Amino acid sequence: MTFSVSILGSGAAIPLIHRNPSAQLINVHEKLFLFDCGEGTQVQLRKNRVRLRKINHIFISHLHGDHYFGLIGLITSLHLLGRESDLHLFAHPSLEKIIKLHLESSQTILKYSLIFHAIDPGLHEVILETSAVTVSTLPMNHNFPTCGFLIREKQGKPNIRKDFVAGHDLSKDDFRMIKAGNDFIDADGHVYRHADITSPPAAARAYAYCTDTAYYEPLVPLIHGVDLLYHEATFMDDKEKDAQAKFHSTARQAAMIAKKAEVKKLMLGHYSARYKNLDGLLSEAKDVFTETILADDGLVVEVLNG
Amino acid sequence: MTFSVSILGSGAAIPLIHRNPSAQLINVHEKLFLFDCGEGTQVQLRKNRVRLRKINHIFISHLHGDHYFGLIGLITSLHLLGRESDLHLFAHPSLEKIIKLHLESSQTILKYSLIFHAIDPGLHEVILETSAVTVSTLPMNHNFPTCGFLIREKQGKPNIRKDFVAGHDLSKDDFRMIKAGNDFIDADGHVYRHADITSPPAAARAYAYCTDTAYYEPLVPLIHGVDLLYHEATFMDDKEKDAQAKFHSTARQAAMIAKKAEVKKLMLGHYSARYKNLDGLLSEAKDVFTETILADDGLVVEVLNG
Repeated sequence: MTFSVSILGSGAAIPLIHRNPSAQLINVHEKLFLFDCGEGTQVQLRKNRVRLRKINHIFISHLHGDHYFGLIGLITSLHLLGRESDLHLFAHPSLEKIIKLHLESSQTILKYSLIFHAIDPGLHEVILETSAVTVSTLPMNHNFPTCGFLIREKQGKPNIRKDFVAGHDLSKDDFRMIKAGNDFIDADGHVYRHADITSPPAAARAYAYCTDTAYYEPLVPLIHGVDLLYHEATFMDDKEKDAQAKFHSTARQAAMIAKKAEVKKLMLGHYSARYKNLDGLLSEAKDVFTETILADDGLVVEVLNG
Repeated sequence: MTFSVSILGSGAAIPLIHRNPSAQLINVHEKLFLFDCGEGTQVQLRKNRVRLRKINHIFISHLHGDHYFGLIGLITSLHLLGRESDLHLFAHPSLEKIIKLHLESSQTILKYSLIFHAIDPGLHEVILETSAVTVSTLPMNHNFPTCGFLIREKQGKPNIRKDFVAGHDLSKDDFRMIKAGNDFIDADGHVYRHADITSPPAAARAYAYCTDTAYYEPLVPLIHGVDLLYHEATFMDDKEKDAQAKFHSTARQAAMIAKKAEVKKLMLGHYSARYKNLDGLLSEAKDVFTETILADDGLVVEVLNG
């Protein structure tokens, strides 16, 4: 079952020719979730051949422009392209006013329902639950109300052993009943214990998206053991004071959080425009946490069981 | 003296991978004027190696998103890049509210003065006069309050004949006095008539930017004889009814306006996303007006004396 993260933008405040501001598309079992939506995100989605209509949930971490200036354009394009199904937007309450003012100013009445969900970025709480995932907020330590997002796959159902399936004429109902945790009784009354005819499902996977934030240890227990952590790494060590002053992190600090939280893999991103070459950021992070990779626009990362 | 138009975006409502929404940079004597600012304009400016700080005047035709969704990003980036000089914004009054709400929501206090000039898109009037140009509004016929812009170079000063300069020892003051229209009297009291020692300056050039609009004949006298006319050409002939319904123009209608207004050159743009190949648009316009070219992202057109 798919669980992937597509990087649409890995840059910080200023959009560059080859590095867009923050946006990521999360695919869990072919359901698409958009995390942040910097300027240019809709074109990045086109480049990634994403069918825009398949996005039903958008989450905005905070109201600095590099995380949401592409949203009104995406909302408008979906309208122009004839979208009819609901679109859910999770963000700081101020964003609803901004979107409304844009739409009113152009006398636009959307053809679909834009359902706004105000989030409290100071809390760690579940804000969405679907059949496949839960999404929770993660409080960040930024100079502005900001939260990250934790998207956790729900535990799957047990697998029925292939040799058992091959040896028995199971109906659809039988499959459903066994998957639901029941024993199986055949036509002769023979009872097959559930534990004997199934294997446990793969462990549920989790992805944490943490930007923008200074080094913030209270985050550690909230993201403990996730399979993939995206953590902002705006600066290198030599700019640690700048990072602190601007409530951003260094690559090393991102790695320290990853190590303390015992995550399976760390992905760096939200790079300051000053870094043309990212090797230094990667190297400083790997000093602390080996399983580190660099986000880059266009990269697709599979979230694997750690 | 430079007078050029750089096409930053030549597409209509939906941003595409290789065709951005409306934006143009006008360079008159190395002063930069931005006409419209669709999403992605700041990156287009970077691709064109424009020094963002050199833009002092921005004009927005109307509040459909493909003409202004890139503006808040550009305003914010100029702030982050440390701009201190005034920036003048000419637009429908509602845009000021939108910009203010964005800035307030992110608690941003700009490091420079953003000076808002409300324009009445229903009028044809001068809205800016500098030492080099005047900029006037041009009422459009759209389904929303919209105006185009006419930028007209001021008449230059006469040229002093080279043979006269070579034969006389002219001071800076002499140059200034002759350029200002005076005769020249040499040390012996000999009078040289102004008309005899100068040639007239090149004719002042003019560029008209007309988007979005249905076919609209009242525009003709306002743009008569301009050296370059940009006129929207959203559709081909077969979609003339769509053009009418949506208050847009066909390429042929753009050419009809160009012909009636006796402009020197026509540039088409604001193409519907349906047209991958623009040859048909060009061909239908050229049926009516031969001196027609296609706008394309990245194209720079010199405005030449017709």
